[in-house]
Amino acid sequence: MEELVRRIQKDGNVLSEGVLKVDSFITHQVDPDLMKRIGARLAEVFAKKKITKVVTIEASGIGPAIYTAQSLEVPMIFARKAKSLTMNEELLTSSVYSFTKQVSSTISISRKFLSEQDRVLIVDDFLANGQAAKGLIELCQQAGAQVEGIGIVIEKGFQTGRQLLEDMDVPVVSLARIASLNDGKVSFKEADA
Amino acid sequence: MEELVRRIQKDGNVLSEGVLKVDSFITHQVDPDLMKRIGARLAEVFAKKKITKVVTIEASGIGPAIYTAQSLEVPMIFARKAKSLTMNEELLTSSVYSFTKQVSSTISISRKFLSEQDRVLIVDDFLANGQAAKGLIELCQQAGAQVEGIGIVIEKGFQTGRQLLEDMDVPVVSLARIASLNDGKVSFKEADA
Repeated sequence: MEELVRRIQKDGNVLSEGVLKVDSFITHQVDPDLMKRIGARLAEVFAKKKITKVVTIEASGIGPAIYTAQSLEVPMIFARKAKSLTMNEELLTSSVYSFTKQVSSTISISRKFLSEQDRVLIVDDFLANGQAAKGLIELCQQAGAQVEGIGIVIEKGFQTGRQLLEDMDVPVVSLARIASLNDGKVSFKEADA
Repeated sequence: MEELVRRIQKDGNVLSEGVLKVDSFITHQVDPDLMKRIGARLAEVFAKKKITKVVTIEASGIGPAIYTAQSLEVPMIFARKAKSLTMNEELLTSSVYSFTKQVSSTISISRKFLSEQDRVLIVDDFLANGQAAKGLIELCQQAGAQVEGIGIVIEKGFQTGRQLLEDMDVPVVSLARIASLNDGKVSFKEADA
């Protein structure tokens, strides 16, 4: 997605060879119009998959996921990282290690929102080592739902996430793919869409 | 907002005299079209306030906030409940006690995203005791930004949040106002918009 690549070049900050900061338009301050176009693009790519639910994980996945769901005319579900007192029903749960935050967390979705009838599109802002997406796939599998694909805003193409997910037979579509963050500079691979 | 009141009547679940569960369309599974219309309505109410930023708190505030920001054509910022490794810059911070989760948490926004030039609309999904909104007001005040108002999706009108915020001289606009949850039933007050 050419607009996204240009925006990363303009407003992304390379903090180290592993860390790209996009907190001025995606992960903390959010540009709603960009999110809307990202959602529309992901919806277009997966238009023929008969998606019934878009699934993401709080918090920065919610922006791209809600617009993707709106374009596909289906509900969006965000997995929770901590159990709230009002989530007293049966839960699908999975454990996810975050290298950014250096903690393992249990993620969960209420079982009642996913079933064997569902065809799920997982959406997230970043794909790095793939742990979050893998956890979301596991939640869907527990419900017997079919994961039709994973739509990613920014893929760190120099990490192992894509391989992990493709080994699980889930197609990955990334709107921007980063080849490296060496020398304080973002180099891109060709994006999927 | 009549559509929202009807949806709460149809899909809301009263768990106790204090707890209304709307996890099938707002707080866990999200109806994007409803969120879009909620955002459009809040934007309309605050249209003359020359808002420059919409501020919310992760995670369930993000849906209504992003659509409000889109309608107002301004960025949305979501305060974080935990510090991430890539948020290494100067932070505005405030402490918020959640009665639902029974924990105090530090919320934060990067200082660079709010300034004395900003006119802020705070948006959140629920107003109960007002602690989250108060924390967000404090973050804005630390930056010297002006808080022009607070847009709420569902107000628990039998709790003290509105009084707390109005005592801080911030106008509150709630799209649905609950009078009571007694006898397993939702009774409404007249909404603000």
